[in-house]
Amino acid sequence: MSLDSEEALRAWFLGPRAENAELLERLIVEALRDHVFWRRNYHPEDGFTIREMDKRRAGYEQSVAVLIQELMGLLAQLKRDVPFFSGRYKGHMIAEQTIAAQVGYFATMLYNPNNIAAEISPVTTRLELEVAGDLARMIGYDPAKSWGHLTSGGTVANFEALWLARSVRYLAVAAAGAAAELGLELPVQTARGSTASVADLPLWDLLNIPGPASLDLWELLWRSGSKADVQRALVNHSLAAIGYQEYSRRLAMDYGDPLPAGVVLVAATAHYSWEKIVRALGIGSNQLVYIPLDTRFRMNPDALWERVAELARHRQPILACISVCGTTEESAVDRLDQVLDIRDRAERELGVTFHLHSDACYGGYAAALTRNADGARRSAADIRAAAGTDWPDDGWVSSITALGQADSVSVDPHKMGYVPYSAGAILVRDGRIRHLVATDPPYLSPPDATAPAMERFLGRYILEGSKPGAAAAAVWLSHKVLPLNEKGYGYLIARTMVGARRLHASLCAAELAPFRVVLLPLPDINIVCYVVSHPSLDSLESLNAFNERVYVQMSLARPDGAPEYIISRTRFHSPVYDGAVDPILAALEVCTVDEWKARGDEGLVVLRSTVMDPFLVAPPPAPDHVAGYVSALRRASTAALSFSRAV
Amino acid sequence: MSLDSEEALRAWFLGPRAENAELLERLIVEALRDHVFWRRNYHPEDGFTIREMDKRRAGYEQSVAVLIQELMGLLAQLKRDVPFFSGRYKGHMIAEQTIAAQVGYFATMLYNPNNIAAEISPVTTRLELEVAGDLARMIGYDPAKSWGHLTSGGTVANFEALWLARSVRYLAVAAAGAAAELGLELPVQTARGSTASVADLPLWDLLNIPGPASLDLWELLWRSGSKADVQRALVNHSLAAIGYQEYSRRLAMDYGDPLPAGVVLVAATAHYSWEKIVRALGIGSNQLVYIPLDTRFRMNPDALWERVAELARHRQPILACISVCGTTEESAVDRLDQVLDIRDRAERELGVTFHLHSDACYGGYAAALTRNADGARRSAADIRAAAGTDWPDDGWVSSITALGQADSVSVDPHKMGYVPYSAGAILVRDGRIRHLVATDPPYLSPPDATAPAMERFLGRYILEGSKPGAAAAAVWLSHKVLPLNEKGYGYLIARTMVGARRLHASLCAAELAPFRVVLLPLPDINIVCYVVSHPSLDSLESLNAFNERVYVQMSLARPDGAPEYIISRTRFHSPVYDGAVDPILAALEVCTVDEWKARGDEGLVVLRSTVMDPFLVAPPPAPDHVAGYVSALRRASTAALSFSRAV
Repeated sequence: MSLDSEEALRAWFLGPRAENAELLERLIVEALRDHVFWRRNYHPEDGFTIREMDKRRAGYEQSVAVLIQELMGLLAQLKRDVPFFSGRYKGHMIAEQTIAAQVGYFATMLYNPNNIAAEISPVTTRLELEVAGDLARMIGYDPAKSWGHLTSGGTVANFEALWLARSVRYLAVAAAGAAAELGLELPVQTARGSTASVADLPLWDLLNIPGPASLDLWELLWRSGSKADVQRALVNHSLAAIGYQEYSRRLAMDYGDPLPAGVVLVAATAHYSWEKIVRALGIGSNQLVYIPLDTRFRMNPDALWERVAELARHRQPILACISVCGTTEESAVDRLDQVLDIRDRAERELGVTFHLHSDACYGGYAAALTRNADGARRSAADIRAAAGTDWPDDGWVSSITALGQADSVSVDPHKMGYVPYSAGAILVRDGRIRHLVATDPPYLSPPDATAPAMERFLGRYILEGSKPGAAAAAVWLSHKVLPLNEKGYGYLIARTMVGARRLHASLCAAELAPFRVVLLPLPDINIVCYVVSHPSLDSLESLNAFNERVYVQMSLARPDGAPEYIISRTRFHSPVYDGAVDPILAALEVCTVDEWKARGDEGLVVLRSTVMDPFLVAPPPAPDHVAGYVSALRRASTAALSFSRAV
Repeated sequence: MSLDSEEALRAWFLGPRAENAELLERLIVEALRDHVFWRRNYHPEDGFTIREMDKRRAGYEQSVAVLIQELMGLLAQLKRDVPFFSGRYKGHMIAEQTIAAQVGYFATMLYNPNNIAAEISPVTTRLELEVAGDLARMIGYDPAKSWGHLTSGGTVANFEALWLARSVRYLAVAAAGAAAELGLELPVQTARGSTASVADLPLWDLLNIPGPASLDLWELLWRSGSKADVQRALVNHSLAAIGYQEYSRRLAMDYGDPLPAGVVLVAATAHYSWEKIVRALGIGSNQLVYIPLDTRFRMNPDALWERVAELARHRQPILACISVCGTTEESAVDRLDQVLDIRDRAERELGVTFHLHSDACYGGYAAALTRNADGARRSAADIRAAAGTDWPDDGWVSSITALGQADSVSVDPHKMGYVPYSAGAILVRDGRIRHLVATDPPYLSPPDATAPAMERFLGRYILEGSKPGAAAAAVWLSHKVLPLNEKGYGYLIARTMVGARRLHASLCAAELAPFRVVLLPLPDINIVCYVVSHPSLDSLESLNAFNERVYVQMSLARPDGAPEYIISRTRFHSPVYDGAVDPILAALEVCTVDEWKARGDEGLVVLRSTVMDPFLVAPPPAPDHVAGYVSALRRASTAALSFSRAV
């Protein structure tokens, strides 16, 4: 029976008025009692440790009284929290959670498994690997060859991606050193596609061996010598063991070639956490090379090519290129297919390659839109017909389909997977990479050290250690109820994309005179950004200050604490947004592009409405939060303007 | 009214037979309904998005059916999980969770706040900072000067500690470079306590400026120039910006002094994650210097001094020294007071210093034992009298009290805080350090950039981004019910320490002939380790294989899946355990210490029982799981031996 997703959608969430409260309570209580009876049935001969009489003692009563009192206090405090569940929340990338995820998390938390190792999470480590397989299939990886796991969030997922990227990028150098030490002659495929002996390759070529070829070389090395010898030789030449300080010296000594430091290319819209990551990894934020944007806020492929060619001329190695699928500010989706073409061209024409990572923390789940229930890809026309809109175009589908060719992809279930914090995920196309960062804990003893047991010891391969099995169960159960195709997550996300377009169109058409709304282009997913202007605002500073005040009116920072709607705001700075922001500045007419660039710290304040609410386009009697928002924006703008005049 | 903790203890947990099921269910349902009515009361004029009629449609029904079916499947699968709640579980460092933490987590998860920023977690960011303050006070930090936050676990907490340590260790070098660039003459206090001008100091001395003095210098620098100038000049000389490759070259160029790479000293028992951490940070695992243990499995202070002196002779900088409070294998507590003395001596006699971090992920909560209800310190004699044992000694209390002098401390609420995964914590004594790793996100705009708002934007200062506010609420509520003193966590942990000693004594005294139990010394906290031997086991290999089989009998890996008790095991390898393991090997009589060292990969298999169960010493009718375990061990040993003979 084919699922009617529009009907099913109403069962997926507790609902803006907690309409499904009865269902959620029933399942929560069921999960709790099921756990309770498990405890009762475990060695019933053990009798009772806490007797009924114990519950009548003063100390017991006192402790329960404190617990209840403090819990009531916490519940009262939480009333000051943010109503993410409401259609009135159009702020950050956070919304309602699926009932499946809430119940899955709670049910499993009672058992509290730790997915660091299957020994203390026999069930949920398996669920975590299943979830990684779900996500891998969705984006187009071969689950048999790829590998993935959950993380505490997108930053750790991205950290791991770059950590793995660095490991694979320097792998051929380590393998070449090890081969020389062991007197082995090994062939390797170069970026230009020819085969060479590693011993003959200069450092520059070794740093530009494609990832899969590096891993083939590494496998060949292991097969060519005894395990102990290869291990020792590899350690002798690996950055992970030697550390950067000594490694830099060694390279210069061994190859007489003090290569410039390896760089990381990122879309200019990349999340600020990339700066944290390169600092922590010891790469250094100076090595973060921002690639300019086009006017759709996507990485500009021509600019990427120019930069790659320039770096090649200076023989500066590229560790990785970070493309974004769903920028955190605009939900822009890079044309990853074009980025892949550029890497192909760089390999062919320049002999240069790099690890290609897609930061799809926000946008990754949108790939569900491109899958039929049987897993086959849907065309842009199929998606448009189902959504009843003129969106998406073929390029969008090509960008999403290209995820399957990226070397690694990060995707956060706790964003568009609609599960509670915290659940990020990292997926790698060639699962062999994980062995490059494996660390053996002392309690992983030889009898366990067989492949299947090691695979279930996630702590070996990942940055984190202890991690909640409950998060894996939450994602797993949510994927069961909302499949990763057009019927489940695809439908859910399509609703938000349609909602975002309706909001965009309504703001475009809104008659807000004397105010004027200048909008960013239609978003690639579901974040609508805009600037409100007024004839009296004749400078960048006054415009920014005014939009800040509009934001305050639309936030919990509002003096009365009761905003009609809640939005967020961001600030576009030069040089990151150079080019992309030009049409906006032109429409605003408060300063030229050059003036904006000159005032780097000032930037441009942009109001931002993330539409993760799938009910924004629900028919009546659901409230019309598009029309409601537009008229609230007028009131907020009027209030902000009178405040400007008052001060 | 003073709390009777023995009575209260019975209200703290759901209980091994879910004796407190009614209480937990009541609070869970209360929290859920409270949330439901919050939603109902939020803009009631918005009407209903999901109508009763919608719940009667086929698609809705179908989705609910899938949800319930899959949930039932998950609940069935979870029956294969590990019974951490039972006194029969004596395995890894995981046990029951407090009811307060379970309810606090669940209640807050319904709101799903994200502690990356107060804007989307106005309540729980505050609770997180309160929790960090609780922990800081417990270990003896001044909450006004220290800083801390929750992490996803111990690995990330330790990662941050070393990331911060590196930042502060290279800070004086950056400040000296910046001062020279700006033409400033700045005084700084050296390791030997004298005051010098930074411009006059050679690289070696700059790398050995004490942490607080480096931060003073940094503050002075900010006060001496314009913000923009100082920022630019600091960035020009900071490792975080430049990256290791370029930084190494620059140091060699600027100072003509190609210093050896900075090392990290760790207790030999340090968790395997330290290897991950130094690899990821680019420090390199070769720079991890293991300090030998004494026979109580604590870092040997004499060995530490020798190593520090030797490194000073080779002019090899020490980034940090990692002492352990509660090793994961033996729960050993390093004599941190003596480690501090050695650093003092190194500063005085050698002009050498380093960041001192205590990895108290496991043992940190034991500091609650040293606090009276009014926060004053308790003496060892006070603690002994209350616990009714001959433990702890004055040295133990000195070690714990010394935490207040460490530069940073990591402590995991999800270990001895008895809260659900995931909740780690990092605390730093001098909170100024956090600014060294701060990264500004684009949505932190100038109007927000005032100190209090920035302080509540945790994402600026930490490795992770999105993080569950629910974890903070869980820890917060648990601290309210179980205060961090002798009445709350102190009492709870004392019970487990008494239980572990009783288990140790019973295994010592057990008449298991022909088997013999060789025990590690009495633990510093609550992990009991031992090896079972038998006259027929005359080689290290056969002894190890036998103990592995005993472990399998006592684990879910047992063929029938129904072990009587569940324990864990570890493997002691050379050179990490050299010295510490000698008395054990002598008692076992299967090989000499030299033979054991020669068989590095073989190691010594050690059975390990973590006693986190506070009811192990509860009087009848609570089951006697000490006696029960001893007789189960005999049966497991007999079964393991007959299996040995069969193969």
